[in-house]
Amino acid sequence: MRDFLPAEKARRERVLAVIRERYRAHGFDEIETPVVEEYARLHAGIGGDNEKLAYNVLKRGLDADAIRAAADDPASLTDLGLRYDLTVPLARFYATNRGHLPSVFRSIQIAPVWRAERPQKGRYRQFVQCDIDIIGDGSARAEAELVVATLDTLDALGLEGGSVRINDRRVLDWMLDSFGFGAEERPGVLITIDKLDKIGPEGIVAELRERALRLGQGADSAAIDAFEAFLRRPITLEYHPYGERQIRKALPADAPDEIVSHLVGIGAAAAAARAATAGDEVAGDIPLVFDPFLVRGMGYYTGTIFELAHPSVDYSLGGGGRYDGMIGRFLGQEVPAVGFSIGFERIVDLVAEQTDAAAPAVVLVHDRDVPEAGLLALKAGLVRQGSRVRLEQRTKNLKALLERAASDGYTAFATVTAGTTADDLEVKPLG
Amino acid sequence: MRDFLPAEKARRERVLAVIRERYRAHGFDEIETPVVEEYARLHAGIGGDNEKLAYNVLKRGLDADAIRAAADDPASLTDLGLRYDLTVPLARFYATNRGHLPSVFRSIQIAPVWRAERPQKGRYRQFVQCDIDIIGDGSARAEAELVVATLDTLDALGLEGGSVRINDRRVLDWMLDSFGFGAEERPGVLITIDKLDKIGPEGIVAELRERALRLGQGADSAAIDAFEAFLRRPITLEYHPYGERQIRKALPADAPDEIVSHLVGIGAAAAAARAATAGDEVAGDIPLVFDPFLVRGMGYYTGTIFELAHPSVDYSLGGGGRYDGMIGRFLGQEVPAVGFSIGFERIVDLVAEQTDAAAPAVVLVHDRDVPEAGLLALKAGLVRQGSRVRLEQRTKNLKALLERAASDGYTAFATVTAGTTADDLEVKPLG
Repeated sequence: MRDFLPAEKARRERVLAVIRERYRAHGFDEIETPVVEEYARLHAGIGGDNEKLAYNVLKRGLDADAIRAAADDPASLTDLGLRYDLTVPLARFYATNRGHLPSVFRSIQIAPVWRAERPQKGRYRQFVQCDIDIIGDGSARAEAELVVATLDTLDALGLEGGSVRINDRRVLDWMLDSFGFGAEERPGVLITIDKLDKIGPEGIVAELRERALRLGQGADSAAIDAFEAFLRRPITLEYHPYGERQIRKALPADAPDEIVSHLVGIGAAAAAARAATAGDEVAGDIPLVFDPFLVRGMGYYTGTIFELAHPSVDYSLGGGGRYDGMIGRFLGQEVPAVGFSIGFERIVDLVAEQTDAAAPAVVLVHDRDVPEAGLLALKAGLVRQGSRVRLEQRTKNLKALLERAASDGYTAFATVTAGTTADDLEVKPLG
Repeated sequence: MRDFLPAEKARRERVLAVIRERYRAHGFDEIETPVVEEYARLHAGIGGDNEKLAYNVLKRGLDADAIRAAADDPASLTDLGLRYDLTVPLARFYATNRGHLPSVFRSIQIAPVWRAERPQKGRYRQFVQCDIDIIGDGSARAEAELVVATLDTLDALGLEGGSVRINDRRVLDWMLDSFGFGAEERPGVLITIDKLDKIGPEGIVAELRERALRLGQGADSAAIDAFEAFLRRPITLEYHPYGERQIRKALPADAPDEIVSHLVGIGAAAAAARAATAGDEVAGDIPLVFDPFLVRGMGYYTGTIFELAHPSVDYSLGGGGRYDGMIGRFLGQEVPAVGFSIGFERIVDLVAEQTDAAAPAVVLVHDRDVPEAGLLALKAGLVRQGSRVRLEQRTKNLKALLERAASDGYTAFATVTAGTTADDLEVKPLG
């Protein structure tokens, strides 16, 4: 976990302010849930592998007997846990507060989550997630609103040119079924397919064959052959322009109409919105890419899945999907839901440096013997005029002092001696 | 712990934005520390009673033997804890990052803390603290900067008329010593004095006598007599204008010059700054009140202590003090430090409701059969023009739908049918 020093903290807050403002403009409303949730909720099997990475809070007031008894039941040591994502808490929030929310609820959550990840470069045990979700709308409009708001936010951060890879869990299911993989085989096959970007089609087929051999599943051999033939078919996918023809061409024959038309609907609505945003009527070219082999790890997805890409990096900047089954787990009544999460920690590193141009920031460099009352009056006068003001007692190395102030975002300075009045004060630009 | 629904969350974020902006204007820089700190640091005896209220995180990977062994050593079950305040983490942060910080470091921390409080009205187990601290300046200027920034922030929130009660731990120590209380008696006596607002001078004296009797400390009898005589002296304290004469008058004779001049210095600097802020030169009337019986609970205070008051409420809205000893506990080298914490959860309830006047917020009420692409294009067009836009499918009770949108901060609406184009769209004010 990390400390954030002033320059980095200011940068993070600036990026968060843009994200928050854009999401709000698109009709989403921010909510907040407590950092800790009940242990049983966090470990209900919804969070997938993340459940294993959860930090749990020690029960208070355990006596020696209770601790000894917990040797055979470690879960009895805890009743609360730190959230590992914002989706499980949102489902719980919606179930708790539904009566106070609009029938279609569009939420923003901007908040830290915790996972006991192994320390490695670029991974932190506390990190911020920025999620938008739409609960109560099962139509393709919901996915399109998420895609449009996400891409608009990326644009507002100066990261133009982002695109969204899109697929549907039902596409994967139907494809694997059509190749001949049994329902019980598919989760394992999906884990392999998820590596397509890394190991390529040949690697996928080799891994599937090796696995079938190891598990003694000779019956899968025909399914793997069918899959291989499909992967090797001699077509180039034309993802742009995105439409029914392109989607059908990327899939085995006779893909189900319902799924294809949902994917087409998302594209049409997103395209119309992007065209209206850009102020032109060319609706054809939208940054949406159909990828029939996009998997996404989380087990709770039931339909559409997305991943956010940007040409400047070869990793995903966010993702999400439809999880129509989850709210029902908490509410006892099915409610459709779909979400998109921006990878804040990755995005904040890509956003160009910028200083607060809004207000001048002045360092008052004062001699040691300047009376306190006069010094604070000079500071207050500048603050009143709209400046940000820092006091610094003069040191021998004035240059170093001013350089450090400049690196902290200060743009001007003035020197103050014992006799300086507000009228004498000469504010000069820094650097 | 609480969920925050959209209206309340928006209000909290608005108040936090004002606080953050004002503190920054006064030359403070925001930092952030992880939510969890090492158990040993949180339980080093610095946090006072709050240590007992800490939530601790269960160690990961404990086996049955380790759990069984912990029956005699419950602390071995945990290695991390949720912070219970922002001061202990700040001291740790400063010790870790000192080389990257200015020699006088003015920090802002705006973040949640956790305490296992007993559930009672107005108390929450997760709550936000807003702290400013100055590390590396032992002069009265530091206290004055904190007081001025705090009162300016209160003004900016529309809570004009705030005032700061001020005392010095050394004043209390010296007074009790001059009455004749032994050093070992003083902590207990301070706990009683802290109740002055509630039980009055007679109550204080009665409690001290009862306690001396119970503990068999007959020697304290003379000290209590001296204290009682002081409390009953026939003067009315004139707290305004705040100056050396007023401070000396409120204390027994011959109060130490060093402490009095520090208190006077704070007042003079704060007065000059407030006068410059207000734009006039009348420096006499500052909202500072010397209260020789102000105690403040935390044991780590070593000098000045403050409490923030406002005429609209009879409880404190914040407080702080000087804790010159604490940084040394982490750094191994003494560094002066003083902080002021605004009670965000109390203040947010006092701030007047206000809607975002910045941008119009429009609800698009659409029929069920409006094509998705057209609907999203209408929304995107309004977003592009600077509006916040929410889609709502028309329901039988249109009035209820619009009322709920208004209560969510929306200010206008337009109805959309299957044929509506951007040119037809008629945006009307809500309500």
